[in-house]
Amino acid sequence: MALTTHSEHICDGGQIGFYSHQSEELDLVASFGAFIPQEATREKPVPVIHVLAGLTCNHETFLTKSGIVRFAAQHGMALIATDTSPRGSNTPGEAESWDIGVGAGFYLDATQAPWRAHYRMGSYLDRELPAVTEAVFPIDGTRRGIMGHSMGGHGALVHALSRPDLWKSVSAFAPIVHPAVVPWGEKAFTTYLGPDQTGWADHDATLLLTAGHTHPTTILIDQGNADQFLEKQLQPWHIEGAAKAAGQKLELRRHAGYDHSYWFIQSFAEDHLKHHAAILKG
Amino acid sequence: MALTTHSEHICDGGQIGFYSHQSEELDLVASFGAFIPQEATREKPVPVIHVLAGLTCNHETFLTKSGIVRFAAQHGMALIATDTSPRGSNTPGEAESWDIGVGAGFYLDATQAPWRAHYRMGSYLDRELPAVTEAVFPIDGTRRGIMGHSMGGHGALVHALSRPDLWKSVSAFAPIVHPAVVPWGEKAFTTYLGPDQTGWADHDATLLLTAGHTHPTTILIDQGNADQFLEKQLQPWHIEGAAKAAGQKLELRRHAGYDHSYWFIQSFAEDHLKHHAAILKG
Repeated sequence: MALTTHSEHICDGGQIGFYSHQSEELDLVASFGAFIPQEATREKPVPVIHVLAGLTCNHETFLTKSGIVRFAAQHGMALIATDTSPRGSNTPGEAESWDIGVGAGFYLDATQAPWRAHYRMGSYLDRELPAVTEAVFPIDGTRRGIMGHSMGGHGALVHALSRPDLWKSVSAFAPIVHPAVVPWGEKAFTTYLGPDQTGWADHDATLLLTAGHTHPTTILIDQGNADQFLEKQLQPWHIEGAAKAAGQKLELRRHAGYDHSYWFIQSFAEDHLKHHAAILKG
Repeated sequence: MALTTHSEHICDGGQIGFYSHQSEELDLVASFGAFIPQEATREKPVPVIHVLAGLTCNHETFLTKSGIVRFAAQHGMALIATDTSPRGSNTPGEAESWDIGVGAGFYLDATQAPWRAHYRMGSYLDRELPAVTEAVFPIDGTRRGIMGHSMGGHGALVHALSRPDLWKSVSAFAPIVHPAVVPWGEKAFTTYLGPDQTGWADHDATLLLTAGHTHPTTILIDQGNADQFLEKQLQPWHIEGAAKAAGQKLELRRHAGYDHSYWFIQSFAEDHLKHHAAILKG
């Protein structure tokens, strides 16, 4: 596994670094960030949480702005931060709007030309990135959680509900819970998956729950009530209803005054680390 | 006092915002960031710490990357984050190198043409920014501390040693402690203050201590031993010697493995907030 190290820094006693590698799934160079806490060793590998950022972000954003590293260090857990899309594919249209293409991979495998050649963040996240990182870092892939924000919250929920065998704990900040019915999701799914909506259900947390997919743990979601995307793009009531119908344990917390920014995320990041630690280290 | 609000967000129960105003000192529009904790009211204004970022940074950097807001909220203290230089002055040469001009104001008043027209961050920081922010926010200017990183650490030390009546507590991360003898400082002082070094002593923490300026509180400095600028630009042993000779209380902590980045700052930010709180709220 050939990794290129772009930078490494000691932080909170552990090590945070930014790396790239040649991705087979994406057929491109892919970048990611990783935090490994001080106590991690080959003999005693630590649990890991993959963190997924939202539209326009990259592999540095969540680690830099969420304040989460401190709490990962306190709980002795690793963090892996994927990029939000392939980069450098030169797919026609990938740089024309901020909610499609670069920075907007939606953590799925595109089925439509010309996107399907490189836009395979779904398989990259489920298979390749865990394999690459667990080969080089002292982290325990049997105790792997997932967390995300906005588009990344969508990614975390969908991956955890689809593959609870891979993702043992899950939480989200202001996630897109029902992309099939909101503008961001409709545009992305039409572009990447095509206009036939039958293929969309596998990529929508609310529809996955409705179809009987559940996660054995409680899903934690934090949502700001002053989020500028709440009514049009996020609509958390959909997952609330679907979870209740499916018997899925869900803790959906609404916070007066908080918006969609990382200032919101950093205010509640500690609780998310505790949530994952209680499951992965419990 | 006409402020333009660029954004405001609830964070850790308080409010963080980014603002601009027409600065009289700079004769330009100036931007700053502010965090006001939840408990601050006009009747019970809170202490405030001004945070000064380093070369190439702006008024958002320290608040976004240091993780400090959380601890300010916990201690019930406000934060004000100045920009690192004037912006938009079109001073010849201000955009030619990253360590002079834009992003590199060194928190002093230039005496040399063409810089002296706008490069007046010294007076801006001592007089105008406190006046502007204390007029509009519920903060207590009689309990005002200062903290900075690298060039901002230089700024914090120099302002606190020069005007302990204005700045009641002081700390720094990886500061330039003796700019008169290191490349960054020599270049900046020659540019802004001219080649006659007699005028430099008022802008150099080590020389201020040597000249008898002290601060009534302990100065807290954190320095990473793996800092890439340690030997050439920072040279903390100068302030250690000068403080000892001057009878200045100094807590200089060296940290193995830590570099010059905000990953270092965020690892020790909590201790700095405790340091300022103990003085300003003690």
